[in-house]
Amino acid sequence: MALIVKKFGGSSVATPDKMRAIVQRVLKGKQPGDKVVVVVSAMGDTTDDLVSLAKQITSKTYGREMDMLLSTGEQVSIALMAMAFQEAGQAAISFTGAQAGITTSDAFNKGRILELQPDRIMKALDDDNVVIVAGFQGITGRGDITTLGRGGSDTTAVAIAGAIQADVCEIYTDVDGVYTSDPRVVPNAQKMKEITYGEMLEMAKLGAGVMQPRAVEMGSRFNVPIHVRSTFSEAEGTVIQEVCSMKIKQYLIRGVAQDKNVAKITVLGIPNKPGYAYKVFSELAKKHVDVDMIVQSVRIAKEGVTDITFTIDRAELPAAREVLEHIRTEMPVEDILVDDTMAKVSIVGAGMAGHPGIAAGMFGVLGDNGINIEIISTSEISITCLIGEENVDVAVKAIHAHFFDEH
Amino acid sequence: MALIVKKFGGSSVATPDKMRAIVQRVLKGKQPGDKVVVVVSAMGDTTDDLVSLAKQITSKTYGREMDMLLSTGEQVSIALMAMAFQEAGQAAISFTGAQAGITTSDAFNKGRILELQPDRIMKALDDDNVVIVAGFQGITGRGDITTLGRGGSDTTAVAIAGAIQADVCEIYTDVDGVYTSDPRVVPNAQKMKEITYGEMLEMAKLGAGVMQPRAVEMGSRFNVPIHVRSTFSEAEGTVIQEVCSMKIKQYLIRGVAQDKNVAKITVLGIPNKPGYAYKVFSELAKKHVDVDMIVQSVRIAKEGVTDITFTIDRAELPAAREVLEHIRTEMPVEDILVDDTMAKVSIVGAGMAGHPGIAAGMFGVLGDNGINIEIISTSEISITCLIGEENVDVAVKAIHAHFFDEH
Repeated sequence: MALIVKKFGGSSVATPDKMRAIVQRVLKGKQPGDKVVVVVSAMGDTTDDLVSLAKQITSKTYGREMDMLLSTGEQVSIALMAMAFQEAGQAAISFTGAQAGITTSDAFNKGRILELQPDRIMKALDDDNVVIVAGFQGITGRGDITTLGRGGSDTTAVAIAGAIQADVCEIYTDVDGVYTSDPRVVPNAQKMKEITYGEMLEMAKLGAGVMQPRAVEMGSRFNVPIHVRSTFSEAEGTVIQEVCSMKIKQYLIRGVAQDKNVAKITVLGIPNKPGYAYKVFSELAKKHVDVDMIVQSVRIAKEGVTDITFTIDRAELPAAREVLEHIRTEMPVEDILVDDTMAKVSIVGAGMAGHPGIAAGMFGVLGDNGINIEIISTSEISITCLIGEENVDVAVKAIHAHFFDEH
Repeated sequence: MALIVKKFGGSSVATPDKMRAIVQRVLKGKQPGDKVVVVVSAMGDTTDDLVSLAKQITSKTYGREMDMLLSTGEQVSIALMAMAFQEAGQAAISFTGAQAGITTSDAFNKGRILELQPDRIMKALDDDNVVIVAGFQGITGRGDITTLGRGGSDTTAVAIAGAIQADVCEIYTDVDGVYTSDPRVVPNAQKMKEITYGEMLEMAKLGAGVMQPRAVEMGSRFNVPIHVRSTFSEAEGTVIQEVCSMKIKQYLIRGVAQDKNVAKITVLGIPNKPGYAYKVFSELAKKHVDVDMIVQSVRIAKEGVTDITFTIDRAELPAAREVLEHIRTEMPVEDILVDDTMAKVSIVGAGMAGHPGIAAGMFGVLGDNGINIEIISTSEISITCLIGEENVDVAVKAIHAHFFDEH
């Protein structure tokens, strides 16, 4: 008897036929007494279609109304999925984010789950229903519908798994697990059987698109094992959990990740006094622009001013530009430079901490390939270099070969 | 300064362009200080498209899940409409049925509005928003989404107008008012300036498709004037209200209505004892099948049994058949006959009460045209005859000519 949350993405529920296939798969794997929650995204291109409808109305983003609009996509999916289960003879009930008890912050378009009251889910499970929950959405304390931002359905699934103390949260996707690098770039990348939350978090943040970082954080917080596996095969995927028992050959690094979705912003000539840099980043935070890497350099030639370079997600460039234009009117700034052709390449692995040669190895490989490193940032279990987007594939292949190939 | 509810149907909001046209129309008519609530239906064929998606999954109707599905149509409309108002520089906010404070019964697919708490609507109006509300939907006390059945958006609009004590509820539609008969059938039918709730209710119940009967009832209960008018012209339409000041030539009858959507069911040989007929109708009521005309005839040839004939909406035939098949297993019944080719033709008018010749006139016209009357039912302000569907157009034309044309 198990308590399982299963999440299926938009391509897995794109048509009624595909929904039926999921129903068959879920019922085939369901043992008597098993309790199953199914989290689904919007069908196929529904979200894109809704966005393009909105674009015919306005070029601006009206947060609350956009979430009102987009949340319908998942609502259609859950209703149809519940019908499909009932049609197959399995009692089922669908819940919107609100009905599933998901309360979020009021940051429209990128709400954070603040609370999950699973009473109604538990009651429906106890009544032998398969419970279908709309991914990607919740409701604020005031009763406004929010969406959770990109990949939010993963977060919904893991949050529910945490709240109902599920045995496992299965994320069904179009890849069959987490690889040591992107197999489209590195053909001999290997599928990992296990990975720790910390490592996966680094991989995810650094662009390994398999899982949304917030979902991994959520899994870590509630200690829910997350099983990333293929919608199209029965093969075991990769289990993300606290401690890995991996008996296979241990590499010092676990994977090589990349992220091409990076923009670099440089603010030149900010007064080098307390409060100025703070103001830049606090204004960005107010607009929910996540700043990633930051470098501040004090100039030698001109005293009293400093340059700040930082990176953000490219999607947030319009919001960032607005903030920066406004800041320009409030403080002296020489210039603001934007480069949206940057990318990150990273190595991740809990084993690298005690091995100082690892960083040197990475920088050496990049240097040997004539690739310039603009910024370096490191964490306990990762090293990331900002490089030109055009060099990413070469960099990832070379770094992967350096650390994984037999020499 | 006026407080106005305006309702626009699906064809009026079918495209972003049409939405923009509505925004312009609403803003053009809005005086400073006016407070406006806009109720909208789903865009164009959205509801039909959603129903056909569901039909690809199942041939059954799963009430709760169907409402979960269909309610998304209006939610898309309100989000886009709110964006369109904001784009035009007018503050606006959208509310789902639940957010608008609409609590319904839990009869899925045909919920009734039990309560409307307009606090959030009033607050948003006080903050100078145009408030956009999703028609056709509400939420049960348990938090399940319901829809209100056919034409439910009219009911939403009038219920809101009642709850906020609006000056008028304007129903924008593709006809420019209420006519003495269907102009497609009777080319010289006349548009009425005014009609009472009671008369309109009879017209609506009898198939004049302009307004949903529940909406008219709701208007009567809260004494809200309902102005039925065209989306495509500025002309005044027909005002439905308690007392009409109509100064134009008074006819004894107000209109001739028809309804082709009728099925006749005859249950032959029911025991003529207390409780049996009751059981038939109470079981139908439990399944939310509305029974319209009823005739019970005691047989002379065979004692102790009776025949019951009644009419229902054709859409409810499948549900009615289920109930009747079940009843057959529980009580002796000779046979059950179904005829789904019936129609109703009716005359309506508050003025007919004191004029006994009216009924005779109607029956005479039908007889002169060789049309057989199967059932007659009368109310204070209407007379309805059940006839074969194939005779409806002839009957309506002849009756209209009899009462309205100069002789």
